[in-house]
Amino acid sequence: MVSDTIIVPKTQKAQLNCKFGLETELTEIPVPEPKDDELLVHLLYSGVCHSDGSIMKNTMPMLTPSTLPFVVGHEGAGIVVQIGKEVTGFKEGDRVGINFVNRSCQTCEFCKRTGAEAFCDSPTHLLTAKWGTFQQYITVSALQAQKIPDGVDLAKVAPTQCAGCTIYRALKETNTRPGQFVAINGAAGGLGSFGLQFAKAMGLRAIAIDFGQAKHDHCLRQGAEFFIDAQTQNVVEEMLKVTNGCGPHGVVSVAPATKPLEEALLYVRKTGTIVMVGLPDDGKFTLDINLMVFKGVTIKGTLLGSREDMDEVLQFLARGLIDIPIEIMGLSELPNAVKRLENCQVNGRIVLDTSK
Amino acid sequence: MVSDTIIVPKTQKAQLNCKFGLETELTEIPVPEPKDDELLVHLLYSGVCHSDGSIMKNTMPMLTPSTLPFVVGHEGAGIVVQIGKEVTGFKEGDRVGINFVNRSCQTCEFCKRTGAEAFCDSPTHLLTAKWGTFQQYITVSALQAQKIPDGVDLAKVAPTQCAGCTIYRALKETNTRPGQFVAINGAAGGLGSFGLQFAKAMGLRAIAIDFGQAKHDHCLRQGAEFFIDAQTQNVVEEMLKVTNGCGPHGVVSVAPATKPLEEALLYVRKTGTIVMVGLPDDGKFTLDINLMVFKGVTIKGTLLGSREDMDEVLQFLARGLIDIPIEIMGLSELPNAVKRLENCQVNGRIVLDTSK
Amino acid sequence: MVSDTIIVPKTQKAQLNCKFGLETELTEIPVPEPKDDELLVHLLYSGVCHSDGSIMKNTMPMLTPSTLPFVVGHEGAGIVVQIGKEVTGFKEGDRVGINFVNRSCQTCEFCKRTGAEAFCDSPTHLLTAKWGTFQQYITVSALQAQKIPDGVDLAKVAPTQCAGCTIYRALKETNTRPGQFVAINGAAGGLGSFGLQFAKAMGLRAIAIDFGQAKHDHCLRQGAEFFIDAQTQNVVEEMLKVTNGCGPHGVVSVAPATKPLEEALLYVRKTGTIVMVGLPDDGKFTLDINLMVFKGVTIKGTLLGSREDMDEVLQFLARGLIDIPIEIMGLSELPNAVKRLENCQVNGRIVLDTSK
Amino acid sequence: MVSDTIIVPKTQKAQLNCKFGLETELTEIPVPEPKDDELLVHLLYSGVCHSDGSIMKNTMPMLTPSTLPFVVGHEGAGIVVQIGKEVTGFKEGDRVGINFVNRSCQTCEFCKRTGAEAFCDSPTHLLTAKWGTFQQYITVSALQAQKIPDGVDLAKVAPTQCAGCTIYRALKETNTRPGQFVAINGAAGGLGSFGLQFAKAMGLRAIAIDFGQAKHDHCLRQGAEFFIDAQTQNVVEEMLKVTNGCGPHGVVSVAPATKPLEEALLYVRKTGTIVMVGLPDDGKFTLDINLMVFKGVTIKGTLLGSREDMDEVLQFLARGLIDIPIEIMGLSELPNAVKRLENCQVNGRIVLDTSK
Repeated sequence: MVSDTIIVPKTQKAQLNCKFGLETELTEIPVPEPKDDELLVHLLYSGVCHSDGSIMKNTMPMLTPSTLPFVVGHEGAGIVVQIGKEVTGFKEGDRVGINFVNRSCQTCEFCKRTGAEAFCDSPTHLLTAKWGTFQQYITVSALQAQKIPDGVDLAKVAPTQCAGCTIYRALKETNTRPGQFVAINGAAGGLGSFGLQFAKAMGLRAIAIDFGQAKHDHCLRQGAEFFIDAQTQNVVEEMLKVTNGCGPHGVVSVAPATKPLEEALLYVRKTGTIVMVGLPDDGKFTLDINLMVFKGVTIKGTLLGSREDMDEVLQFLARGLIDIPIEIMGLSELPNAVKRLENCQVNGRIVLDTSK
Repeated sequence: MVSDTIIVPKTQKAQLNCKFGLETELTEIPVPEPKDDELLVHLLYSGVCHSDGSIMKNTMPMLTPSTLPFVVGHEGAGIVVQIGKEVTGFKEGDRVGINFVNRSCQTCEFCKRTGAEAFCDSPTHLLTAKWGTFQQYITVSALQAQKIPDGVDLAKVAPTQCAGCTIYRALKETNTRPGQFVAINGAAGGLGSFGLQFAKAMGLRAIAIDFGQAKHDHCLRQGAEFFIDAQTQNVVEEMLKVTNGCGPHGVVSVAPATKPLEEALLYVRKTGTIVMVGLPDDGKFTLDINLMVFKGVTIKGTLLGSREDMDEVLQFLARGLIDIPIEIMGLSELPNAVKRLENCQVNGRIVLDTSK
Repeated sequence: MVSDTIIVPKTQKAQLNCKFGLETELTEIPVPEPKDDELLVHLLYSGVCHSDGSIMKNTMPMLTPSTLPFVVGHEGAGIVVQIGKEVTGFKEGDRVGINFVNRSCQTCEFCKRTGAEAFCDSPTHLLTAKWGTFQQYITVSALQAQKIPDGVDLAKVAPTQCAGCTIYRALKETNTRPGQFVAINGAAGGLGSFGLQFAKAMGLRAIAIDFGQAKHDHCLRQGAEFFIDAQTQNVVEEMLKVTNGCGPHGVVSVAPATKPLEEALLYVRKTGTIVMVGLPDDGKFTLDINLMVFKGVTIKGTLLGSREDMDEVLQFLARGLIDIPIEIMGLSELPNAVKRLENCQVNGRIVLDTSK
Repeated sequence: MVSDTIIVPKTQKAQLNCKFGLETELTEIPVPEPKDDELLVHLLYSGVCHSDGSIMKNTMPMLTPSTLPFVVGHEGAGIVVQIGKEVTGFKEGDRVGINFVNRSCQTCEFCKRTGAEAFCDSPTHLLTAKWGTFQQYITVSALQAQKIPDGVDLAKVAPTQCAGCTIYRALKETNTRPGQFVAINGAAGGLGSFGLQFAKAMGLRAIAIDFGQAKHDHCLRQGAEFFIDAQTQNVVEEMLKVTNGCGPHGVVSVAPATKPLEEALLYVRKTGTIVMVGLPDDGKFTLDINLMVFKGVTIKGTLLGSREDMDEVLQFLARGLIDIPIEIMGLSELPNAVKRLENCQVNGRIVLDTSK
């Protein structure tokens, strides 16, 4: 796929949102020029994330596109085709991952501190400040381009750049140790499936919460030790049952709803930690402070992860310890992909092939 | 105060709640017998805490007295007058502190783990399972009796046993480091004042939130670097102003209301931590999950502290680094003390002298 | 093995050291009486550890038996047959593990702090202060008796009580995270084998160092990802090779010699941690401070583990994730067992059946 | 000092080492050009550190100048006079600090992880790879230039860039908490004095070890709670005496000798931490592994600190909490300054004024 002489075209295809909504226009737009400290990346694949749809419809208060038209997509994987003249450490043909944080300053307190680059004081974020990965070429600050280990399928890399990294970080944020229990709700989806695989690879005992026999089977295949059916079982009771009456040490709440959070606060172990990943539509959750205090519970919000987390995620991928099922569709099929995602008709993750 | 021959009387005075409410009966009751692993302690002083009143009125869902009548009070200081025959490490005349956890099992996972004795699986808690410190004599498991360093005033010890330890632990739970900012709301009260003193002793830069000139002056005297008046100032704006626009790294929310919590979520630094100490009446708080996620905030519930925390608190007291103003009243004046506390008419902490 | 009516005999067999050296006398001695807070345990199995031999010969400066005669052994497993009258939480027939720390005070700063019970200020240690597990009955403070999960073979429990817990704690002390590399030298022995199994269960990538094809095969079976032969390979070079040139994040040094430690300092990753478990004969190691500083290395001594660690070890055992090969010999064969251990003629761990 | 139009001269003065040894030549050399991502800084002040002399004599095995001639010095403070065209976030006239790490890659695992920039895989270090701060102009990667808060004296900033940051980091590496004891040997020197001031500002209880009445008085003025005279007192005994028999929780070993390290291992609290800063001449230290294991001690090497540490150091300086005495000499007096330092004839820190 990489020729000796890489020829960068003048124009490329992109999926433009000319207005808010799930309709996009597959348009020919110019290929951007990398700045001196940037790479130009030929995107081969881009994952489709639930939040892409929300941004297209402009329903996420914290992630508002700054202009119309715009291009969403924030989980890319591709090949370096041009290198800014100040960049060191990259060569044409290198394979890189592209995530939500397209540029971080590396000088603010959050960049200086582990794992907080997502909270950079002056970042360039895809989705809001810059066009995303549903195009064929993108520029990226060399510091934020994620080198991909050899032998890894680029199509599999795409969903790690948001879903994989986010759930891995969330698991780390639970502060659980190998041998401890971690519950994951919404476990059969893209993030959840990654979560079950990571949990197993990290020595954690994962308890999946979702519903239906198909998801039961899927979750156990991904590495869950137990499955609780949120439609047919009393989640709190079952959770206590499988954890010797004590509850899981950590909870990662992926399901974008409040009931699972309420349940989590009831079943989480005393002094345990709940990490919030999924965002309910209205973004509100009524917290029972008495439970928080008398159980000594910690609740955390977490966003993406650090460049170090991303390196670790890719190592797990390279070692074959994570491998969620992907379904490849063409870039032209974006609206359809988002609709299926919104209707919960996707197992694992949809990845768009930008050449189609 | 300690004679060579300690004579333990058969009966003692106690402030009994024969029904729920702030009325108590100062009654003569038997002095209890220590079990083989317990101490009998002659209580000289007992602090009065806001939650004593709540329990008397039975308005705290997590802390319901198991029987009527009952005796509240959970911040005692006194002298060992009788020693169970299996007890080692204590002698008559030793000075000890008494707290909410009268007995912990030392074998459950919470007792085995630092700082989690308050979450013991089979504890004996004052207030709920056992009569509290508003009496003249009390038994305590030797493991939970807190040895008092020499040279410390026992009347000053009493309020450390709940208020002091709780706020110290809460400050530790913010995970702030020396040189970082910590905001404390409800800062002029008993817990808050301790908090400002601890913060200073710990090298933290404390920002007090409360209202009125008198509380302003009081807070600065306790060690606050800044004061924000919640009645006359925009708390969020002022907080950002005094923290170079970034917000404090940690927040300890002492005020028993939800508005201060909402503000805390707005002004807390990205990746910062809010520790909840004060309980709003209805115990509910509507959390903005978007803010939690996009700011990477942690919210924690915390309850009392560990025996190690208590040791550390008493060392700070012995070194003169904490010293909140106390007002000594007689045990007979309990109802009046609670009423004044409920009406916010107390500076620092009321301590009851059990001999009066 | 547990009858409805447990009859405790008056006397029992024990392996007495009447003088220093590997010769012992299998003698009939009285069965001890439990104190009020103790259990009497019928020991069924006791592991044989390298340090038992050293103590018999009195060559460990920090572990000197306080009297002659004495009984060594510090890895026991058995059944509760009598219960002190102050003990709660145990019943006759309960299965318990016995370790080096026979009693801890639970009131000193080390007991109050996680994982530091082995450093208790006023402990009763087997080997030095009290006769060990090479007898049929032993008393133990109820707090230090380790409850054994159902379904676990007691013979397998014995070696977890020192070897298993020590190496598990050492791995935790490396501060490595799932996915990181940990090197273990002396990896084919009892501790090392446990270490490889734990490392795998904890998501760590273990690199075993030992020598010979048999140990190579053994180590890979225990879970090592790589094996380096210390006799035929350049350990430092090979270590860098298998860790992408960076060295392992953590090292557990089990081999009782200094050369492996010197090598560890050379190959450990910058900012990595070396945990010392094995004690060279003279107990001395010449540290290169320049390497320590310019690589930012941490070196730790570690001793046994906490009661919490022990619980976790037994959970890993119950789940079948650790299972080192044991060889059962009779209590009467102790001298022979120690000799074989000293001659490195043991694979895995020797466990003595006290009935033989 | 900063004019509207900054004129950068073509040449400048520098203290060149044309051969190894303490003799230097004050020579006119060209002013360097900043790369596109660099700043050119007019150095006003440069601290003189013990290791500058060692490097001049080429006696530090880990820090060998790569060429002759060379310029040492690694604690600078000055003003930005020219800005590479890719640099953002700086303007001419900004005040910056210059340290040992002149450039870090920000992409290796050590740069990505907190506090490990000093261990960058491909750094440009002053002293070894690039001429140091004993000249009037120097270039620096914008990422590694340390912004100086307003109102801080630049002459005072210079010694924070190595001495201040190193000792601050070392104190953090002890993992001590406010209220705990930390011992510092070689406490009266430049690093030690900073250490005592930081310890106080961090709520730690500092115990200074040095010798003589003058140093005793100096150390107490810097914030030490206790002073132990290493020449007239038994250090181990005294240390135990002032720490209630338990020893300090942490030790920072600044004295470049092995005896203080041996003593530290004897007196450090069980489970405590010793951080090595000072390097004995031969760089060797014979470690007693038995003590390490049976006391559960941690020993760490530490090098400089992170950019985050440096920010924190400068905040402490801006708040007036650290302020070691400096003695200003001219750049031309470098050989004399180094000689006095080697003869222990310096209180606090010598800072060279590059204009003289």
